[in-house]
Amino acid sequence: MQAGKPILYSYFRSSCSWRVRIALALKGIDYEIMPIHLTKDGGQQFSKEFQALNPMKQVPALKIDGVTIGQSLAIIEYLEETRPTPPLLPQDPKKRASVRMISDLIAAGIQPLQNLSVLKEMGQENQLPWAQKAIINGFDALERVLQSTAGKYCVGDQVSMADLCLAPQVANAERFKVDLTPYPTISRINKTLLALEAFRVSHPCRQPDTPAELRA
Amino acid sequence: MQAGKPILYSYFRSSCSWRVRIALALKGIDYEIMPIHLTKDGGQQFSKEFQALNPMKQVPALKIDGVTIGQSLAIIEYLEETRPTPPLLPQDPKKRASVRMISDLIAAGIQPLQNLSVLKEMGQENQLPWAQKAIINGFDALERVLQSTAGKYCVGDQVSMADLCLAPQVANAERFKVDLTPYPTISRINKTLLALEAFRVSHPCRQPDTPAELRA
Repeated sequence: MQAGKPILYSYFRSSCSWRVRIALALKGIDYEIMPIHLTKDGGQQFSKEFQALNPMKQVPALKIDGVTIGQSLAIIEYLEETRPTPPLLPQDPKKRASVRMISDLIAAGIQPLQNLSVLKEMGQENQLPWAQKAIINGFDALERVLQSTAGKYCVGDQVSMADLCLAPQVANAERFKVDLTPYPTISRINKTLLALEAFRVSHPCRQPDTPAELRA
Repeated sequence: MQAGKPILYSYFRSSCSWRVRIALALKGIDYEIMPIHLTKDGGQQFSKEFQALNPMKQVPALKIDGVTIGQSLAIIEYLEETRPTPPLLPQDPKKRASVRMISDLIAAGIQPLQNLSVLKEMGQENQLPWAQKAIINGFDALERVLQSTAGKYCVGDQVSMADLCLAPQVANAERFKVDLTPYPTISRINKTLLALEAFRVSHPCRQPDTPAELRA
C-alpha cells in the first residue's frame, strides 16, 4: 500500500488547497498535483471518481502512505505527525492551542461561510456582501487574537499551521475586495509570509491549473 | 497563573459547547460552567466582558491553566495533550487522521453553515431548508466515510474526538427535522454514544442553563 509520490488533489484558487501546498513545500515533500476544477464540467469534484476518493466533494485531498485524507487541517496534522521537520506546531501546549485556535477560527469560522458552494446559493447580487461580512466578522476577531499571540508570525516567531491558514484567507479577502486597513497585524504577517519561498511556489498564481491570464 | 477549577463558557444547546463538555466528562476534569445565553439580552456573547475573553463572540471558551482557549477542537486537542487519559485520539497516525478528518468534516463542513448567526441572516422561512441542506450534504459524505472507518464508534472501537462531534451534530439534525433513515451508520453510532455516561451528563437537556421545559 505504500505508494510512490503523494498526490494532491488541488484547485489553484482553493484557499484550503493552498494551505496544504504550503505545508508540503515547507516540509520539502515531493508530490504530484492532480488538478480538480471546481467549476468546469459542472464541477469536477462531483465526478464519481473523485467522490470515491473524497465523499465531501471538496479539495484538497491528499493520497499519501496508502491512504487518502480529506480536510486541510487533518492533512496538515498528519504531515506534522509523520514528517515532523520543520515543525508546523510549537512545542509548548499553550502555544499549540493558540495555533489551533487561530487555524480553526479561519478554517471553521470564516472560510466555510464564503466558499463557492455557499455563495452559489446566495444569488449573484448577494455574494459579495455575504462573503465580505463573513470575512470582516472573522478578521475583527482574528486581529484581536493576533495582537496577543503574534511575533513575526501568527504565534511567536515560527511559521505554524496558523500562518498556513492566514495567507490564503487574506488572498480570499482581497478577491472579495475587503478593506484590510483595519487589520494591521493581519496585513503585516501576510506580507512577511508571502515573501517566503514555500508560500511563493504554492501560490494560486503559480499552479499547473492556473489560467494563463492569472499567472504571475 | 495556575487557576483553580477550569471555567467553561457554554450554552446548553450549542453543539460546539457540548463537544467540549463531553471531553471534560470523559477525562474526569472537574470544572465550573458559566452559561452564556446566545439569544437573551440580544446575545450575551456580544458583551464587552465576553468579547475580551473570546473575540469570536462564540461559545465554547475554556479558561484553564491560566489561559482562555476558544474553538472547540482546539480546546479538545489541548485537553488531549495536557490530560492524555483516557485518550481521545488513537495512537496510529492514519487513524488519528481519520478522527481529525471526521471532526473537521463536521466542525468546518457542516456546523458553521447551520449555526445561529448564519440562520439569522436567512430570513425566517429559509432557515429550516438551509440548515437541512447543509446537514444532509454533510451527512451524505459522513455516512460514506464512516462505512470505512467505523467500528463500534466513528473510528474503530474507541471513543474519539470524532464521536464528540458526531452526537451533537445528530442532535442538531433532529432539531432541524432531518430524516436520518438514509444514515444507518451515523444513527447506530449516535445511539451507542448517547448511552455513555459522559454523553448523558453533558447533554443539552441536563445543563444548568437548560430551560425547565427542555429538561429531561
